[in-house]
Amino acid sequence: MNYTRFSSKLLEAAVEEFARLPGIGHKTALRLVLHLLRQDKEVVNNFGTTIIQLRNEIMHCKICQNISDAEICNICSDKARDKTLICVVENVKDVISVENTNQYKGLYHVLGGIISPMDGIGPNDLSIKELEERLQEQSVKELILALSTTMEGDTTSFYLYRKFKEHHILISTIARGVSIGDELEYTDEITLGRSIANRTPFKPALS
Amino acid sequence: MNYTRFSSKLLEAAVEEFARLPGIGHKTALRLVLHLLRQDKEVVNNFGTTIIQLRNEIMHCKICQNISDAEICNICSDKARDKTLICVVENVKDVISVENTNQYKGLYHVLGGIISPMDGIGPNDLSIKELEERLQEQSVKELILALSTTMEGDTTSFYLYRKFKEHHILISTIARGVSIGDELEYTDEITLGRSIANRTPFKPALS
Repeated sequence: MNYTRFSSKLLEAAVEEFARLPGIGHKTALRLVLHLLRQDKEVVNNFGTTIIQLRNEIMHCKICQNISDAEICNICSDKARDKTLICVVENVKDVISVENTNQYKGLYHVLGGIISPMDGIGPNDLSIKELEERLQEQSVKELILALSTTMEGDTTSFYLYRKFKEHHILISTIARGVSIGDELEYTDEITLGRSIANRTPFKPALS
Repeated sequence: MNYTRFSSKLLEAAVEEFARLPGIGHKTALRLVLHLLRQDKEVVNNFGTTIIQLRNEIMHCKICQNISDAEICNICSDKARDKTLICVVENVKDVISVENTNQYKGLYHVLGGIISPMDGIGPNDLSIKELEERLQEQSVKELILALSTTMEGDTTSFYLYRKFKEHHILISTIARGVSIGDELEYTDEITLGRSIANRTPFKPALS
């Protein structure tokens, strides 16, 4: 449905701006804009300036390429973190996902994509050169490849493995297997096959 | 899930701003913010300033109380519209809904809510005084009550009917009945009962 009959150009412009966001249609955009209209001016000014400030001031960390407020991000500059571990991820979202597990205390390297010939993305479009420099400069012991299990992800993992296997570091990949809470009956054959092949010693949770 | 481990305060602030909007959780907020980060600075600046401008510059039409860019809204100042008809609605959204039907060429009056003792909203909290002034000043022939069929909506309609029945104008209400495309079997008894009581002469669509 096309809302051409707004009584206000300002309202129409704001709805159009929201409707341009992914997954937000005109109805939702209108609902959000009317919600903002009911808020104090200060709240709405804050909303707008925060978004503008983010886009204008955000940087990429010179070390890990993650988005950052400063030249070096919080994670890379955190002295409590293990600098001998680098977890290679595709994008910023994956950093947040791994951070939210609370299980990882090393550093990251954000590739900014994965090798995908179909989309015209080759190794030179990713921050692989920067990763190589880090491996030469720092005393990295282990490179954890945490990429998607798609064809592109596997290709990128293999490319990185081939490139860095001479660097005398351990190259690992995150465990693939049956998800916690999943039933074997509904697990696909490839996942189940790999999780049998890569079985691990049993550790009782209550021990 | 609480995203406390952002590597960027700017990102975190922007996500929090989006997550404060109704129906937008932290995951969606992050997705929207990362989308904006991929856009040109100009696009994002435009997004922010449009929202701020809307909130700072929007007015309420002095006549119908609809939101407007000027003192008098586009609809009230449109000479092509029938000024003898006023459609009373609860809020701005309802104006847009009626406008989108393309079936109405009169004016509106936005109450700014409905009488709801539970929420502490009485007749004095609505723009009923302004409506009364319009009825005295202008040559209005018909007042169309287009309020929700809830208890609060019916109460408000009844209140307006009682207040304005002495004004020598026709007071009507939008037709209630079985929705287009609905099956009788699944229509509630009250709606079906009212739609039988208020039956209208049959007009063949293909005549």
